[in-house]
Amino acid sequence: MQRYFVSKEQFNGQFITIKADDAHHITRVMRMKENDQVIVSDSETRTVIAKIVELGSQEVKLEIVDEQVKNTEPNWQVSIAQALPKGDKMELIVQKCTEIGAAQFIPFESQRVIVQYDHKKEAKRIERWQKIAKEAAEQAHRNKIPSVEVTHSFKQLLELMPQFNLVLFCYEETGKGKDGAAIKDILTTFNLNIEQQSSPIRILIVAGSEGGFTEQEATQAQAAGAKLVGLGARILRAETAGLVALACVMYESGEMGGV
Amino acid sequence: MQRYFVSKEQFNGQFITIKADDAHHITRVMRMKENDQVIVSDSETRTVIAKIVELGSQEVKLEIVDEQVKNTEPNWQVSIAQALPKGDKMELIVQKCTEIGAAQFIPFESQRVIVQYDHKKEAKRIERWQKIAKEAAEQAHRNKIPSVEVTHSFKQLLELMPQFNLVLFCYEETGKGKDGAAIKDILTTFNLNIEQQSSPIRILIVAGSEGGFTEQEATQAQAAGAKLVGLGARILRAETAGLVALACVMYESGEMGGV
Repeated sequence: MQRYFVSKEQFNGQFITIKADDAHHITRVMRMKENDQVIVSDSETRTVIAKIVELGSQEVKLEIVDEQVKNTEPNWQVSIAQALPKGDKMELIVQKCTEIGAAQFIPFESQRVIVQYDHKKEAKRIERWQKIAKEAAEQAHRNKIPSVEVTHSFKQLLELMPQFNLVLFCYEETGKGKDGAAIKDILTTFNLNIEQQSSPIRILIVAGSEGGFTEQEATQAQAAGAKLVGLGARILRAETAGLVALACVMYESGEMGGV
Repeated sequence: MQRYFVSKEQFNGQFITIKADDAHHITRVMRMKENDQVIVSDSETRTVIAKIVELGSQEVKLEIVDEQVKNTEPNWQVSIAQALPKGDKMELIVQKCTEIGAAQFIPFESQRVIVQYDHKKEAKRIERWQKIAKEAAEQAHRNKIPSVEVTHSFKQLLELMPQFNLVLFCYEETGKGKDGAAIKDILTTFNLNIEQQSSPIRILIVAGSEGGFTEQEATQAQAAGAKLVGLGARILRAETAGLVALACVMYESGEMGGV
Protein backbone atom coordinates (compact mmCIF):
# COMPACT_ATOMS: atom_id res chain seq x y z
CA MET A 1 0.00 0.00 0.00
CA GLN A 2 1.29 3.48 -0.89
CA ARG A 3 2.60 5.56 2.02
CA TYR A 4 2.44 9.31 2.56
CA PHE A 5 4.02 11.42 5.27
CA VAL A 6 2.08 14.50 6.38
CA SER A 7 2.46 17.02 9.17
CA LYS A 8 0.56 16.56 12.42
CA GLU A 9 -1.68 19.51 11.51
CA GLN A 10 -3.03 17.64 8.49
CA PHE A 11 -4.65 15.13 10.87
CA ASN A 12 -8.05 16.40 12.03
CA GLY A 13 -10.04 13.91 14.09
CA GLN A 14 -10.94 11.01 11.80
CA PHE A 15 -9.91 12.96 8.72
CA ILE A 16 -6.63 13.74 6.98
CA THR A 17 -5.92 16.28 4.25
CA ILE A 18 -3.14 15.55 1.77
CA LYS A 19 -1.89 18.52 -0.27
CA ALA A 20 0.41 19.73 -3.04
CA ASP A 21 2.92 17.21 -4.45
CA ASP A 22 1.44 14.29 -2.53
CA ALA A 23 -2.10 15.13 -3.73
CA HIS A 24 -0.73 15.27 -7.27
CA HIS A 25 0.96 11.91 -6.71
CA ILE A 26 -2.33 10.33 -5.56
CA THR A 27 -4.48 11.74 -8.39
CA ARG A 28 -2.10 11.89 -11.35
CA VAL A 29 0.72 9.41 -10.73
CA MET A 30 -1.13 6.66 -8.87
CA ARG A 31 -4.50 7.56 -10.46
CA MET A 32 -6.34 6.54 -7.32
CA LYS A 33 -10.09 6.71 -6.89
CA GLU A 34 -12.49 7.27 -4.00
CA ASN A 35 -12.37 4.48 -1.41
CA ASP A 36 -8.81 3.50 -2.39
CA GLN A 37 -6.66 3.07 0.71
CA VAL A 38 -3.24 4.44 1.59
CA ILE A 39 -1.03 4.52 4.67
CA VAL A 40 -0.56 7.96 6.20
CA SER A 41 2.00 8.80 8.86
CA ASP A 42 2.79 11.96 10.83
CA SER A 43 6.38 10.65 11.13
CA GLU A 44 6.06 10.70 14.90
CA THR A 45 3.49 8.68 16.79
CA ARG A 46 0.71 8.05 14.30
CA THR A 47 0.67 5.77 11.28
CA VAL A 48 -2.78 4.84 10.00
CA ILE A 49 -4.63 3.31 7.09
CA ALA A 50 -7.01 5.84 5.48
CA LYS A 51 -9.42 5.72 2.56
CA ILE A 52 -9.92 8.49 0.02
CA VAL A 53 -13.25 10.29 0.49
CA GLU A 54 -12.71 13.36 -1.70
CA LEU A 55 -10.38 13.78 -4.65
CA GLY A 56 -9.16 17.16 -5.85
CA SER A 57 -6.11 18.06 -7.87
CA GLN A 58 -4.84 20.34 -5.08
CA GLU A 59 -6.15 18.44 -2.08
CA VAL A 60 -7.21 14.91 -1.22
CA LYS A 61 -9.40 14.23 1.81
CA LEU A 62 -9.12 10.89 3.58
CA GLU A 63 -10.88 9.13 6.42
CA ILE A 64 -9.00 6.94 8.88
CA VAL A 65 -10.12 3.31 8.75
CA ASP A 66 -7.44 1.66 10.90
CA GLU A 67 -5.15 3.14 13.55
CA GLN A 68 -3.07 -0.03 13.84
CA VAL A 69 -0.21 -0.13 11.40
CA LYS A 70 2.87 -2.29 11.95
CA ASN A 71 5.83 -0.38 13.28
CA THR A 72 8.76 -0.80 10.90
CA GLU A 73 11.17 1.42 12.82
CA PRO A 74 14.40 -0.23 14.03
CA ASN A 75 14.93 -0.73 17.77
CA TRP A 76 18.32 0.95 17.67
CA GLN A 77 18.28 4.55 16.49
CA VAL A 78 21.22 5.02 14.17
CA SER A 79 22.52 8.42 13.09
CA ILE A 80 24.80 8.73 10.07
CA ALA A 81 27.40 11.50 10.28
CA GLN A 82 28.82 11.88 6.79
CA ALA A 83 31.76 14.10 5.83
CA LEU A 84 30.57 15.92 2.71
CA PRO A 85 31.39 13.77 -0.34
CA LYS A 86 31.87 14.95 -3.92
CA GLY A 87 29.08 15.55 -6.43
CA ASP A 88 25.65 14.16 -5.62
CA LYS A 89 26.89 11.21 -3.59
CA MET A 90 25.21 12.50 -0.43
CA GLU A 91 21.88 11.91 -2.21
CA LEU A 92 22.70 8.23 -2.68
CA ILE A 93 23.79 7.98 0.97
CA VAL A 94 20.57 9.56 2.24
CA GLN A 95 18.39 7.40 -0.01
CA LYS A 96 20.08 4.07 0.72
CA CYS A 97 20.57 4.63 4.46
CA THR A 98 16.91 5.67 4.80
CA GLU A 99 15.86 2.37 3.20
CA ILE A 100 18.20 0.40 5.48
CA GLY A 101 16.86 2.20 8.57
CA ALA A 102 18.85 5.32 9.54
CA ALA A 103 17.14 7.71 11.98
CA GLN A 104 19.16 10.87 11.31
CA PHE A 105 21.74 12.37 8.98
CA ILE A 106 24.45 14.77 10.13
CA PRO A 107 26.52 16.15 7.24
CA PHE A 108 29.81 17.58 8.42
CA GLU A 109 33.04 19.18 7.25
CA SER A 110 36.38 17.51 7.90
CA GLN A 111 39.96 18.33 6.95
CA ARG A 112 39.90 16.27 3.76
CA VAL A 113 36.51 17.40 2.52
CA ILE A 114 37.22 18.88 -0.90
CA VAL A 115 33.82 20.22 -1.91
CA GLN A 116 33.46 23.93 -1.51
CA TYR A 117 30.96 24.39 1.25
CA ASP A 118 28.55 27.12 0.26
CA HIS A 119 26.63 28.62 3.18
CA LYS A 120 24.20 30.35 0.82
CA LYS A 121 23.14 27.04 -0.69
CA GLU A 122 22.89 25.29 2.67
CA ALA A 123 19.10 25.63 3.10
CA LYS A 124 18.37 24.43 -0.44
CA ARG A 125 20.67 21.46 -0.03
CA ILE A 126 19.18 20.33 3.29
CA GLU A 127 15.71 20.71 1.77
CA ARG A 128 16.73 18.49 -1.17
CA TRP A 129 18.19 15.78 1.09
CA GLN A 130 15.11 15.93 3.33
CA LYS A 131 12.91 15.39 0.27
CA ILE A 132 14.99 12.37 -0.75
CA ALA A 133 14.68 11.00 2.80
CA LYS A 134 10.90 11.46 2.71
CA GLU A 135 10.50 9.67 -0.62
CA ALA A 136 12.81 6.84 0.42
CA ALA A 137 10.96 6.48 3.75
CA GLU A 138 7.65 6.22 1.91
CA GLN A 139 8.94 3.61 -0.48
CA ALA A 140 10.67 1.61 2.27
CA HIS A 141 7.48 1.56 4.39
CA ARG A 142 9.11 3.45 7.24
CA ASN A 143 6.97 4.96 10.00
CA LYS A 144 9.28 7.93 10.39
CA ILE A 145 11.23 10.17 8.04
CA PRO A 146 14.87 10.43 9.13
CA SER A 147 15.86 13.99 9.93
CA VAL A 148 18.60 15.81 8.04
CA GLU A 149 20.58 18.22 10.22
CA VAL A 150 22.48 21.29 9.10
CA THR A 151 26.14 20.89 8.21
CA HIS A 152 28.26 20.57 11.34
CA SER A 153 31.89 21.41 11.89
CA PHE A 154 34.08 18.53 13.07
CA LYS A 155 34.24 20.19 16.49
CA GLN A 156 30.43 20.30 16.69
CA LEU A 157 30.32 16.63 15.73
CA LEU A 158 32.77 15.75 18.52
CA GLU A 159 30.52 17.60 20.97
CA LEU A 160 27.53 15.45 19.96
CA MET A 161 29.30 12.16 20.56
CA PRO A 162 28.60 11.78 24.31
CA GLN A 163 24.84 11.69 23.52
CA PHE A 164 25.23 8.27 21.89
CA ASN A 165 25.55 4.83 23.45
CA LEU A 166 28.12 3.90 20.80
CA VAL A 167 30.05 5.91 18.22
CA LEU A 168 31.55 3.96 15.30
CA PHE A 169 34.22 6.02 13.57
CA CYS A 170 34.98 4.36 10.20
CA TYR A 171 38.72 4.56 9.82
CA GLU A 172 40.72 2.89 7.05
CA GLU A 173 43.93 2.91 9.05
CA THR A 174 42.41 0.73 11.78
CA GLY A 175 44.69 -2.23 12.27
CA LYS A 176 47.70 -0.40 10.82
CA GLY A 177 49.13 0.58 14.19
CA LYS A 178 46.25 2.81 15.14
CA ASP A 179 44.21 1.55 18.08
CA GLY A 180 40.87 0.20 16.87
CA ALA A 181 39.03 -2.96 15.89
CA ALA A 182 36.93 -4.55 13.21
CA ILE A 183 33.27 -3.52 13.34
CA LYS A 184 32.00 -7.01 14.24
CA ASP A 185 34.20 -7.23 17.33
CA ILE A 186 32.96 -3.87 18.57
CA LEU A 187 29.28 -4.49 17.78
CA THR A 188 29.11 -7.98 19.28
CA THR A 189 30.81 -6.77 22.47
CA PHE A 190 28.44 -3.80 22.65
CA ASN A 191 25.41 -6.05 22.08
CA LEU A 192 26.52 -8.50 24.78
CA ASN A 193 27.01 -5.80 27.39
CA ILE A 194 23.92 -3.78 26.62
CA GLU A 195 21.63 -3.20 29.54
CA GLN A 196 17.89 -2.90 29.51
CA GLN A 197 17.15 0.78 29.60
CA SER A 198 14.11 2.94 29.21
CA SER A 199 15.51 5.26 26.56
CA PRO A 200 16.30 3.88 23.11
CA ILE A 201 19.82 2.77 22.13
CA ARG A 202 21.42 5.49 20.02
CA ILE A 203 24.34 4.73 17.73
CA LEU A 204 26.37 7.16 15.64
CA ILE A 205 28.20 6.01 12.51
CA VAL A 206 30.85 8.49 11.31
CA ALA A 207 31.97 8.10 7.69
CA GLY A 208 34.63 10.11 5.89
CA SER A 209 34.70 11.86 2.53
CA GLU A 210 36.87 10.64 -0.39
CA GLY A 211 40.15 11.34 1.43
CA GLY A 212 39.11 9.69 4.69
CA PHE A 213 40.15 11.18 8.01
CA THR A 214 43.45 12.55 9.27
CA GLU A 215 45.20 10.86 12.18
CA GLN A 216 44.48 13.98 14.23
CA GLU A 217 40.74 13.66 13.61
CA ALA A 218 40.82 9.98 14.55
CA THR A 219 42.64 10.80 17.78
CA GLN A 220 40.15 13.56 18.60
CA ALA A 221 37.21 11.24 17.91
CA GLN A 222 38.71 8.59 20.20
CA ALA A 223 39.17 11.19 22.92
CA ALA A 224 35.47 12.07 22.53
CA GLY A 225 34.52 8.43 23.09
CA ALA A 226 34.33 7.07 19.55
CA LYS A 227 35.52 3.58 18.62
CA LEU A 228 37.74 3.43 15.54
CA VAL A 229 36.37 0.69 13.33
CA GLY A 230 37.55 -1.12 10.22
CA LEU A 231 35.13 -2.53 7.65
CA GLY A 232 37.25 -5.37 6.32
CA ALA A 233 40.20 -5.71 3.97
CA ARG A 234 38.53 -4.08 0.98
CA ILE A 235 38.53 -0.30 0.72
CA LEU A 236 35.01 1.12 0.49
CA ARG A 237 34.25 4.37 -1.31
CA ALA A 238 33.08 7.41 0.64
CA GLU A 239 29.44 6.74 -0.25
CA THR A 240 29.61 3.02 0.58
CA ALA A 241 31.19 2.89 4.04
CA GLY A 242 28.23 4.38 5.92
CA LEU A 243 25.62 2.14 4.39
CA VAL A 244 27.71 -1.00 4.91
CA ALA A 245 28.33 -0.05 8.56
CA LEU A 246 24.58 0.61 8.93
CA ALA A 247 23.70 -2.81 7.46
CA CYS A 248 26.12 -4.39 9.97
CA VAL A 249 24.47 -2.54 12.88
CA MET A 250 20.99 -3.61 11.70
CA TYR A 251 22.19 -7.20 11.33
CA GLU A 252 23.77 -7.27 14.79
CA SER A 253 20.79 -5.61 16.50
CA GLY A 254 18.37 -8.28 15.28
CA GLU A 255 16.58 -6.20 12.65
CA MET A 256 17.31 -8.94 10.14
CA GLY A 257 16.33 -11.85 12.34
CA GLY A 258 17.95 -13.57 15.30
CA VAL A 259 18.38 -12.21 18.85
CA MET B 1 49.09 2.39 -3.76
CA GLN B 2 47.32 2.40 -7.14
CA ARG B 3 46.19 -1.01 -8.44
CA TYR B 4 46.00 -2.29 -11.99
CA PHE B 5 44.56 -5.53 -13.31
CA VAL B 6 46.26 -7.01 -16.36
CA SER B 7 45.98 -10.29 -18.23
CA LYS B 8 48.35 -13.16 -17.42
CA GLU B 9 50.09 -12.65 -20.75
CA GLN B 10 51.20 -9.17 -19.69
CA PHE B 11 53.41 -10.79 -17.05
CA ASN B 12 56.78 -11.81 -18.53
CA GLY B 13 59.28 -13.09 -15.97
CA GLN B 14 60.22 -10.17 -13.72
CA PHE B 15 58.56 -7.69 -16.06
CA ILE B 16 55.01 -6.51 -16.71
CA THR B 17 53.66 -4.46 -19.60
CA ILE B 18 50.65 -2.20 -18.97
CA LYS B 19 48.81 -0.96 -22.07
CA ALA B 20 46.05 1.25 -23.48
CA ASP B 21 43.67 2.85 -20.92
CA ASP B 22 45.72 1.75 -17.93
CA ALA B 23 48.94 3.12 -19.47
CA HIS B 24 47.11 6.38 -20.09
CA HIS B 25 45.90 6.35 -16.48
CA ILE B 26 49.47 5.93 -15.20
CA THR B 27 51.04 8.60 -17.39
CA ARG B 28 48.27 11.20 -17.77
CA VAL B 29 45.87 10.81 -14.86
CA MET B 30 48.25 9.76 -12.08
CA ARG B 31 51.27 11.48 -13.73
CA MET B 32 53.62 8.85 -12.38
CA LYS B 33 57.35 8.81 -13.00
CA GLU B 34 60.04 6.14 -13.32
CA ASN B 35 60.58 4.18 -10.09
CA ASP B 36 57.05 4.96 -8.86
CA GLN B 37 55.41 1.80 -7.54
CA VAL B 38 52.00 0.28 -8.23
CA ILE B 39 50.24 -2.97 -7.41
CA VAL B 40 49.58 -5.22 -10.41
CA SER B 41 47.32 -8.26 -10.36
CA ASP B 42 46.46 -10.91 -12.94
CA SER B 43 43.10 -11.32 -11.13
CA GLU B 44 43.93 -14.97 -10.48
CA THR B 45 46.94 -16.11 -8.51
CA ARG B 46 49.43 -13.26 -8.77
CA THR B 47 49.31 -9.84 -7.14
CA VAL B 48 52.65 -8.03 -6.95
CA ILE B 49 54.25 -4.68 -6.27
CA ALA B 50 56.07 -3.37 -9.34
CA LYS B 51 58.07 -0.24 -10.14
CA ILE B 52 57.92 1.68 -13.37
CA VAL B 53 61.03 1.22 -15.51
CA GLU B 54 59.88 2.66 -18.82
CA LEU B 55 57.12 5.18 -19.48
CA GLY B 56 55.39 5.53 -22.84
CA SER B 57 52.01 6.98 -23.68
CA GLN B 58 50.87 3.65 -25.16
CA GLU B 59 52.79 1.28 -22.93
CA VAL B 60 54.34 1.28 -19.50
CA LYS B 61 56.98 -1.30 -18.55
CA LEU B 62 57.33 -2.34 -14.93
CA GLU B 63 59.64 -4.55 -12.91
CA ILE B 64 58.37 -6.70 -10.05
CA VAL B 65 59.86 -5.68 -6.72
CA ASP B 66 57.72 -7.73 -4.33
CA GLU B 67 55.66 -10.87 -4.94
CA GLN B 68 54.01 -10.73 -1.53
CA VAL B 69 50.86 -8.64 -1.49
CA LYS B 70 48.17 -9.05 1.13
CA ASN B 71 45.21 -11.09 -0.08
CA THR B 72 42.06 -9.01 0.29
CA GLU B 73 39.68 -11.61 -1.18
CA PRO B 74 36.88 -12.82 1.11
CA ASN B 75 36.94 -16.41 2.38
CA TRP B 76 33.40 -17.04 1.19
CA GLN B 77 32.87 -16.63 -2.53
CA VAL B 78 29.60 -14.80 -3.02
CA SER B 79 27.80 -14.60 -6.36
CA ILE B 80 25.09 -11.99 -6.91
CA ALA B 81 22.25 -13.07 -9.20
CA GLN B 82 20.32 -9.91 -10.02
CA ALA B 83 17.04 -9.77 -11.96
CA LEU B 84 17.57 -6.98 -14.49
CA PRO B 85 16.59 -3.66 -12.86
CA LYS B 86 15.48 -0.49 -14.62
CA GLY B 87 17.81 2.14 -16.06
CA ASP B 88 21.44 2.05 -15.05
CA LYS B 89 20.84 0.53 -11.62
CA MET B 90 22.80 -2.60 -12.50
CA GLU B 91 25.88 -0.36 -12.72
CA LEU B 92 25.42 0.74 -9.12
CA ILE B 93 24.90 -2.88 -8.03
CA VAL B 94 28.08 -4.07 -9.79
CA GLN B 95 30.13 -1.19 -8.41
CA LYS B 96 28.95 -1.41 -4.80
CA CYS B 97 28.93 -5.22 -4.57
CA THR B 98 32.46 -5.34 -6.02
CA GLU B 99 33.63 -2.99 -3.27
CA ILE B 100 31.89 -5.07 -0.60
CA GLY B 101 33.42 -8.29 -1.95
CA ALA B 102 31.25 -10.10 -4.52
CA ALA B 103 33.01 -12.75 -6.62
CA GLN B 104 30.57 -13.01 -9.53
CA PHE B 105 27.54 -11.32 -11.07
CA ILE B 106 24.76 -13.25 -12.81
CA PRO B 107 22.17 -10.95 -14.42
CA PHE B 108 18.92 -12.79 -15.14
CA GLU B 109 15.40 -12.35 -16.45
CA SER B 110 12.41 -13.02 -14.23
CA GLN B 111 8.67 -12.67 -14.71
CA ARG B 112 8.50 -9.13 -13.32
CA VAL B 113 11.53 -7.78 -15.15
CA ILE B 114 10.19 -4.85 -17.14
CA VAL B 115 13.23 -3.75 -19.08
CA GLN B 116 13.24 -4.87 -22.67
CA TYR B 117 16.03 -7.34 -22.93
CA ASP B 118 17.95 -6.66 -26.12
CA HIS B 119 20.08 -9.57 -27.30
CA LYS B 120 21.95 -7.37 -29.75
CA LYS B 121 23.15 -5.10 -26.96
CA GLU B 122 24.06 -7.99 -24.66
CA ALA B 123 27.81 -8.03 -25.45
CA LYS B 124 28.16 -4.25 -25.04
CA ARG B 125 26.29 -4.32 -21.77
CA ILE B 126 28.35 -7.14 -20.24
CA GLU B 127 31.50 -5.34 -21.37
CA ARG B 128 30.36 -2.16 -19.64
CA TRP B 129 29.54 -3.96 -16.36
CA GLN B 130 32.86 -5.81 -16.52
CA LYS B 131 34.65 -2.48 -16.89
CA ILE B 132 32.81 -1.10 -13.85
CA ALA B 133 33.76 -4.23 -11.88
CA LYS B 134 37.42 -3.80 -12.89
CA GLU B 135 37.54 -0.16 -11.83
CA ALA B 136 35.75 -0.85 -8.56
CA ALA B 137 38.06 -3.80 -7.83
CA GLU B 138 41.10 -1.58 -8.40
CA GLN B 139 39.79 1.12 -6.13
CA ALA B 140 38.71 -1.33 -3.43
CA HIS B 141 42.15 -3.01 -3.43
CA ARG B 142 40.72 -6.36 -4.49
CA ASN B 143 43.04 -9.11 -5.73
CA LYS B 144 40.47 -10.37 -8.23
CA ILE B 145 37.98 -8.77 -10.58
CA PRO B 146 34.51 -10.29 -10.11
CA SER B 147 33.26 -11.93 -13.29
CA VAL B 148 30.10 -10.76 -15.04
CA GLU B 149 28.20 -13.60 -16.68
CA VAL B 150 25.82 -13.37 -19.64
CA THR B 151 22.14 -12.83 -18.90
CA HIS B 152 20.54 -16.06 -17.68
CA SER B 153 16.94 -17.18 -17.91
CA PHE B 154 15.27 -17.98 -14.58
CA LYS B 155 15.43 -21.67 -15.51
CA GLN B 156 19.18 -21.45 -16.11
CA LEU B 157 19.57 -19.75 -12.74
CA LEU B 158 17.65 -22.56 -11.02
CA GLU B 159 20.00 -25.07 -12.67
CA LEU B 160 23.03 -23.29 -11.18
CA MET B 161 21.74 -23.40 -7.62
CA PRO B 162 23.01 -26.89 -6.65
CA GLN B 163 26.60 -25.68 -7.23
CA PHE B 164 26.37 -23.44 -4.18
CA ASN B 165 26.66 -24.28 -0.47
CA LEU B 166 23.87 -21.81 0.28
CA VAL B 167 21.39 -19.93 -1.88
CA LEU B 168 19.73 -16.87 -0.34
CA PHE B 169 16.62 -15.91 -2.31
CA CYS B 170 15.60 -12.38 -1.22
CA TYR B 171 11.83 -12.50 -0.98
CA GLU B 172 9.68 -9.68 0.39
CA GLU B 173 6.81 -12.00 1.20
CA THR B 174 8.92 -14.02 3.64
CA GLY B 175 7.08 -14.11 6.93
CA LYS B 176 3.72 -13.39 5.29
CA GLY B 177 2.68 -17.05 5.19
CA LYS B 178 5.37 -18.11 2.79
CA ASP B 179 7.91 -20.49 4.30
CA GLY B 180 11.20 -18.68 4.92
CA ALA B 181 13.24 -16.87 7.53
CA ALA B 182 15.11 -13.69 8.28
CA ILE B 183 18.61 -13.62 6.81
CA LYS B 184 20.38 -13.61 10.19
CA ASP B 185 18.68 -16.83 11.28
CA ILE B 186 19.68 -18.59 8.08
CA LEU B 187 23.26 -17.26 8.03
CA THR B 188 24.04 -18.00 11.69
CA THR B 189 22.68 -21.55 11.35
CA PHE B 190 24.70 -22.05 8.16
CA ASN B 191 27.85 -20.69 9.82
CA LEU B 192 27.42 -22.95 12.88
CA ASN B 193 27.01 -26.08 10.80
CA ILE B 194 29.70 -25.39 8.27
CA GLU B 195 32.32 -28.09 7.96
CA GLN B 196 35.95 -27.69 7.13
CA GLN B 197 36.26 -28.44 3.47
CA SER B 198 38.97 -28.15 0.89
CA SER B 199 36.94 -26.24 -1.69
CA PRO B 200 35.82 -22.69 -0.90
CA ILE B 201 32.36 -21.92 0.48
CA ARG B 202 30.17 -20.61 -2.35
CA ILE B 203 27.06 -18.56 -1.64
CA LEU B 204 24.50 -17.26 -4.11
CA ILE B 205 22.39 -14.20 -3.33
CA VAL B 206 19.34 -13.85 -5.59
CA ALA B 207 17.78 -10.38 -5.75
CA GLY B 208 14.66 -9.34 -7.67
CA SER B 209 13.95 -6.44 -10.00
CA GLU B 210 11.54 -3.60 -9.07
CA GLY B 211 8.50 -5.88 -8.93
CA GLY B 212 10.15 -8.60 -6.86
CA PHE B 213 9.42 -12.26 -7.54
CA THR B 214 6.19 -14.13 -8.18
CA GLU B 215 5.08 -16.83 -5.76
CA GLN B 216 5.71 -19.38 -8.49
CA GLU B 217 9.34 -18.27 -8.82
CA ALA B 218 9.82 -18.43 -5.04
CA THR B 219 8.39 -21.97 -4.98
CA GLN B 220 10.63 -23.04 -7.86
CA ALA B 221 13.69 -21.56 -6.14
CA GLN B 222 12.85 -23.40 -2.93
CA ALA B 223 12.49 -26.64 -4.86
CA ALA B 224 15.96 -26.00 -6.31
CA GLY B 225 17.37 -25.71 -2.79
CA ALA B 226 17.22 -21.96 -2.17
CA LYS B 227 16.32 -20.47 1.21
CA LEU B 228 13.73 -17.70 1.07
CA VAL B 229 15.08 -14.81 3.14
CA GLY B 230 13.70 -11.57 4.48
CA LEU B 231 15.88 -8.50 5.02
CA GLY B 232 13.91 -6.88 7.82
CA ALA B 233 10.73 -4.85 8.13
CA ARG B 234 11.77 -2.10 5.74
CA ILE B 235 11.30 -2.61 2.02
CA LEU B 236 14.56 -2.28 0.10
CA ARG B 237 14.69 -1.12 -3.50
CA ALA B 238 15.77 -3.49 -6.25
CA GLU B 239 19.30 -2.09 -6.29
CA THR B 240 19.67 -2.14 -2.49
CA ALA B 241 18.63 -5.67 -1.47
CA GLY B 242 21.62 -7.46 -2.99
CA LEU B 243 24.24 -5.20 -1.45
CA VAL B 244 22.61 -5.30 1.98
CA ALA B 245 22.41 -9.12 1.85
CA LEU B 246 26.06 -9.19 0.74
CA ALA B 247 27.11 -6.94 3.66
CA CYS B 248 25.26 -9.34 6.01
CA VAL B 249 27.08 -12.37 4.54
CA MET B 250 30.45 -10.61 4.87
CA TYR B 251 29.64 -9.65 8.47
CA GLU B 252 28.59 -13.18 9.40
CA SER B 253 31.55 -14.85 7.70
CA GLY B 254 34.06 -12.83 9.71
CA GLU B 255 35.23 -10.50 6.96
CA MET B 256 34.47 -7.58 9.25
CA GLY B 257 36.09 -9.03 12.36
CA GLY B 258 35.06 -11.72 14.81
CA VAL B 259 34.98 -15.50 14.21
